[in-house]
Amino acid sequence: MIDKLIEKIKEMGNPTVMGLDPRYELVPDEIKNKYDSSNEGICKACLEFNKGLIDSVCDIIPAVKPQSAFYEALGIDGMKVLRETCEYSKSKGMIVILDSKRGDIGSTSKAYSKAYLEDGEFKSDFLTVNPYLGSDGIVPFVEDCEKFDKGIFVLVKTSNPSSSELQNLKLENGKTIYETVGELTEKWGENLRGKYGYSDVCAVVGATNPVELKELREKLPHTFFLIPGYGAQRRKSPRYCFSF
Amino acid sequence: MIDKLIEKIKEMGNPTVMGLDPRYELVPDEIKNKYDSSNEGICKACLEFNKGLIDSVCDIIPAVKPQSAFYEALGIDGMKVLRETCEYSKSKGMIVILDSKRGDIGSTSKAYSKAYLEDGEFKSDFLTVNPYLGSDGIVPFVEDCEKFDKGIFVLVKTSNPSSSELQNLKLENGKTIYETVGELTEKWGENLRGKYGYSDVCAVVGATNPVELKELREKLPHTFFLIPGYGAQRRKSPRYCFSF
Repeated sequence: MIDKLIEKIKEMGNPTVMGLDPRYELVPDEIKNKYDSSNEGICKACLEFNKGLIDSVCDIIPAVKPQSAFYEALGIDGMKVLRETCEYSKSKGMIVILDSKRGDIGSTSKAYSKAYLEDGEFKSDFLTVNPYLGSDGIVPFVEDCEKFDKGIFVLVKTSNPSSSELQNLKLENGKTIYETVGELTEKWGENLRGKYGYSDVCAVVGATNPVELKELREKLPHTFFLIPGYGAQRRKSPRYCFSF
Repeated sequence: MIDKLIEKIKEMGNPTVMGLDPRYELVPDEIKNKYDSSNEGICKACLEFNKGLIDSVCDIIPAVKPQSAFYEALGIDGMKVLRETCEYSKSKGMIVILDSKRGDIGSTSKAYSKAYLEDGEFKSDFLTVNPYLGSDGIVPFVEDCEKFDKGIFVLVKTSNPSSSELQNLKLENGKTIYETVGELTEKWGENLRGKYGYSDVCAVVGATNPVELKELREKLPHTFFLIPGYGAQRRKSPRYCFSF
């Protein structure tokens, strides 16, 4: 899957990702006014807006990143919007990175993987995952990446101000926690490297601290990065890009 | 909310929690045989099994813990089973701890909180959350705990074998990562303490290492614990209990 993403980026000459977070307040009035303001109407407006965005950018941007929290907050109808957004993006040739930050252990991670990578209704090309539970939480996803030609993005260093509270703490061996997670990520992906040398096991690395970004880029030569905080994350339209 | 949970535990004289993970292979044949084996049939069987379990234990066990991964793996119909399981448990007087291990930042954590604590379709009494992103990821939940009388369980030390890979690493100040997260949890909850001295901001602390459990129990006097690994987590029916 990582090879497909890299080729798509090269073909378009564009390493950016479009976030698709259905926030009703950002939907233009011309779409809002077509529907009532019930939860069902909000969902219809958000789906129409998503489809319009996908239509507008599918020739110039390689990937979309729906943030699942906003769909879950809209309940069952919201989950249908998520399913249709993933399907529509794929029908337009875009790569779908579902930002769900899931993570549990063993059979539970496997169930998340079934939902979002394997053959579940919300299946995507990549899923973001949280490393706090260690290998037990990540390996079930890694196995499915191999089996179903998918990928994951492990949270290594996030872009939020308090990410340093835990992630930047120094261990007694002198390394930071995020460095340690970065090394684990490189290890988890060592058997899933594609023809460009990058693995299907990728990393989220915030761009808010360029020194850390540069350091990790050098230390993790086979790990493809998704970089939040590029451009204008704190403005209304979040922006993301890849680095490899 | 923590006071309600403690009172319910005292009233029943029982500190255990029933996991509700819809795994079709564990549903008895007498229920399975009523439905076909389509995804819809599987969902109906799982819901009937859940309701039967809730009916059987609601007089002796204070709380249920649905594991959302298994519902998500069943797609939209599975999410409906989750919604109905939460509602049915509450109608029978049980406290619902939704095990979703969510965690993101700012407005995204707020969206998860809307889905699972505030007024979303899957609203529960407590939600499990992941601390890797630091305070930005947890504070939106804490604010909603106060506003809507709900609670969260922060993953401090999980019960899986590889939890030590990150959680037990020693920092240069001599503390482990799980101790540090435990201290943050105590801090996040300091303004939400109820009449028994415990906070709505609780912790997940695995029972697989009794030394760590005892150490954390002493260090976090205001933090209520959910303890996986009590009894027989690795057998077919996972068991959990509370410690306070």
